[in-house]
Amino acid sequence: MKVDLNSDLGESFGRYRLGLDEEVMKYISSANVATGWHAGDPLVMRNTVRLAKVKGVAVGAHPGYPDLLGFGRRYMELSPEEARNYILYQIGALYAFARAEGLELQHVKPHGALYNALAKEEELARAVIEGIADFDRKLIFVTLSGSRPAEIAEEMGVKAAHEVFADRAYNPDGTLVSRSKPGAVIHDKDEIAERVVSMVKDGGVKAINGEWVDLKADTICLHGDNPKAVEIAAHVRRALEEEGVRIVPMREVVR
Amino acid sequence: MKVDLNSDLGESFGRYRLGLDEEVMKYISSANVATGWHAGDPLVMRNTVRLAKVKGVAVGAHPGYPDLLGFGRRYMELSPEEARNYILYQIGALYAFARAEGLELQHVKPHGALYNALAKEEELARAVIEGIADFDRKLIFVTLSGSRPAEIAEEMGVKAAHEVFADRAYNPDGTLVSRSKPGAVIHDKDEIAERVVSMVKDGGVKAINGEWVDLKADTICLHGDNPKAVEIAAHVRRALEEEGVRIVPMREVVR
Amino acid sequence: MKVDLNSDLGESFGRYRLGLDEEVMKYISSANVATGWHAGDPLVMRNTVRLAKVKGVAVGAHPGYPDLLGFGRRYMELSPEEARNYILYQIGALYAFARAEGLELQHVKPHGALYNALAKEEELARAVIEGIADFDRKLIFVTLSGSRPAEIAEEMGVKAAHEVFADRAYNPDGTLVSRSKPGAVIHDKDEIAERVVSMVKDGGVKAINGEWVDLKADTICLHGDNPKAVEIAAHVRRALEEEGVRIVPMREVVR
Amino acid sequence: MKVDLNSDLGESFGRYRLGLDEEVMKYISSANVATGWHAGDPLVMRNTVRLAKVKGVAVGAHPGYPDLLGFGRRYMELSPEEARNYILYQIGALYAFARAEGLELQHVKPHGALYNALAKEEELARAVIEGIADFDRKLIFVTLSGSRPAEIAEEMGVKAAHEVFADRAYNPDGTLVSRSKPGAVIHDKDEIAERVVSMVKDGGVKAINGEWVDLKADTICLHGDNPKAVEIAAHVRRALEEEGVRIVPMREVVR
Repeated sequence: MKVDLNSDLGESFGRYRLGLDEEVMKYISSANVATGWHAGDPLVMRNTVRLAKVKGVAVGAHPGYPDLLGFGRRYMELSPEEARNYILYQIGALYAFARAEGLELQHVKPHGALYNALAKEEELARAVIEGIADFDRKLIFVTLSGSRPAEIAEEMGVKAAHEVFADRAYNPDGTLVSRSKPGAVIHDKDEIAERVVSMVKDGGVKAINGEWVDLKADTICLHGDNPKAVEIAAHVRRALEEEGVRIVPMREVVR
Repeated sequence: MKVDLNSDLGESFGRYRLGLDEEVMKYISSANVATGWHAGDPLVMRNTVRLAKVKGVAVGAHPGYPDLLGFGRRYMELSPEEARNYILYQIGALYAFARAEGLELQHVKPHGALYNALAKEEELARAVIEGIADFDRKLIFVTLSGSRPAEIAEEMGVKAAHEVFADRAYNPDGTLVSRSKPGAVIHDKDEIAERVVSMVKDGGVKAINGEWVDLKADTICLHGDNPKAVEIAAHVRRALEEEGVRIVPMREVVR
Repeated sequence: MKVDLNSDLGESFGRYRLGLDEEVMKYISSANVATGWHAGDPLVMRNTVRLAKVKGVAVGAHPGYPDLLGFGRRYMELSPEEARNYILYQIGALYAFARAEGLELQHVKPHGALYNALAKEEELARAVIEGIADFDRKLIFVTLSGSRPAEIAEEMGVKAAHEVFADRAYNPDGTLVSRSKPGAVIHDKDEIAERVVSMVKDGGVKAINGEWVDLKADTICLHGDNPKAVEIAAHVRRALEEEGVRIVPMREVVR
Repeated sequence: MKVDLNSDLGESFGRYRLGLDEEVMKYISSANVATGWHAGDPLVMRNTVRLAKVKGVAVGAHPGYPDLLGFGRRYMELSPEEARNYILYQIGALYAFARAEGLELQHVKPHGALYNALAKEEELARAVIEGIADFDRKLIFVTLSGSRPAEIAEEMGVKAAHEVFADRAYNPDGTLVSRSKPGAVIHDKDEIAERVVSMVKDGGVKAINGEWVDLKADTICLHGDNPKAVEIAAHVRRALEEEGVRIVPMREVVR
């Protein structure tokens, strides 16, 4: 049994520092590196890729909306052509740093509001996946577990990694409980670890209403933006390893 | 005898149009494509690369300062580390579009005030060339003919294309006459064509004071931002061809 | 009888030129000056305000989304607090140039996708109007004729100018026919002039299905981004004056 | 005896937090509020102005280069016309928030590399001061104590506040010792307090070589970007008050 642990890294910008990248890098197997549009800059990208190399963590692009002010968390209406080429631009930018450091790009995970929009706008999802395939059909597309974009990717011949969220409650239909609802975010690290183990070993977890929901878990999203989050990452990794689950980059999970 | 003709293209941005790219593309052999920092955007980059492909024109990156407002024409103080990684980022971004369209990147020509700064700041030149080499040591670095950056590139094992300017007067030491001085820019298309032929066939041209100045001309910079410029480009190409000079991408000139 | 003629001006940015501002300025009574977020920059703002002063045209702010790449024409999700303060920032920026040139700000007209979003999101409209009132309760808020934002403004004690579009077809409910539908944009200058006269003198116009639709016309939107548009502007002005309608800044229409 | 204590505040941007604004606001009398070009955004500006109001701190604009990526700390070549209008834009933007909160703008202090450039480029200094005067001749221009820009301002009829730095060593000619030299920055809070008292009470301080240097100290720059800096701010204020120096906004010092 095996699973990938991913985290969004390289989100600092210029003088602004964000995230405990060095810390969380110890516990994950794949790093989603911001590509300078919603966060990140060339120096941060270089340092993040270098750090991933030292730690043996696989790297992927984490492209977002052209919205640094909103940190890519605000929905923007993009045409398919815009989306496809914005993604391509950002993949190329990160690729340059991976290449400079002798690493391969493993995956692409759209960021924030763009990630969420893909699950709702089929044409947008198709455009983003085309952007990925334009660059390299072997790149893995990371998307919400069980979502329509995962199906579209497979129809288009692009591998999808089904992503689950360690600290989020699920609806019985497999969607995430909206952050605006009570209980949407889980804070207890033991409960988080237990849920993650359930997702990986039992192929699902209890939904917020108590029903069981099947979930494919290729990769688990962890956070590194505060000390508590890093502690949870460490705890999740330990719990999985104790249960005999191997933590491997997503390219060894998704084949 | 052979020479490359290059032009700065893909300088439109969003709703803003700039340059007669389709027109000038008929006469050149290498296109310097803006990479989104001082000009250009992902859609423009895609379309420019596609156009170059159709026309059989080689493509290279035209990276600039992070200054869209100033069109990359204002000097900015960059640390070597910033310069190296800004260049790398922009090369990667353009590479993605070239790759999507099945083209190889041929060269990198820094834009505007950055191009000029390289000739004055040796450490900056070194950093930019490192950024190029980080990506691909086979990329050709385009720089002012006879300038120190050309030497530095060769010391570092990166090929340099010596660039001359069709419509600019030269000082006897091989530097360009400053635009603020009378006679700095040549407007007569016959005079321009004659000078270009002299540079390619005789290895030099008359400086502004009437002395002869030796100039290595691997590639000639032409403009495409107005109908007059396009006419000059056509005229220069014709004149060279009539003199038996072959117009080829710079990769066939610089070996 | 009187009406205001307005146009979106000052949309150039850095090296990029857009709009025949000098030409269209001859025919209008109010200029909506872009404030640097979706278009415009400080030099352009200064020159546009100066030009308006020379021509005796009243000036107002034309704030937009923080999206130069999309020219403010793409919907972005903003919180009310963001909208309120983005508007305030942009009003202040233009105010500085008006003050430097000895002019008063007359009005605020949100740009592009933001203008359209206001008619759909009541909370957003409220936030934008609060931003205007935060600066100066005497500023006129320009909005789609007969729309909910006009009512909200009046409830909040801010004067609204009802805006009609010279070259757009209307639905029987007073909304604009979507640009994606045939007949949405009217190109014949005589038809445009006739419709404008009808709106001003008869208080309405024929909708796309032939029914009559009442429209309050405090100000008429004209374009200046191409020679044809300027010609239409001149034609509309002439037609109105021939019918005895006085062209006056909107502060003399909305009281 | 009286002096102003100023600090650069409102430097957060979007999701990025910077500075202990609430803490340092307790000890200062004038806040330099970033205006969104090198740091700050509209929400941050509003909140900073509101906080200043609550604490009874006077507000001024802290405009910078259009360089968020470099935090305005990198020299950029600006034409006088650009500088004048960039300053004007940013003053207007902050004015809007001050007006919304019922405060008056007290001063303008250029930020970072622009602040430094003014002391070297007379034409640039003149342009910046013109930008200030374009908005309001009563705004106080904050500049390096004893520098040429202070003289220029006075020649132009704009009041200048002479600024000294609490934690920086001085050369015997009154310029700051470059940060790249040993001893340039003073870390001991007692030494800092002693120097500040000397500047205010004795009109000067010992230069780095032991010689006395006269310094006019209208306002003292303090920092708030880390807990140590805030502690120093508190300590400096206490030391001044113990010596009978009143801490007042610069408008009560510069008349």
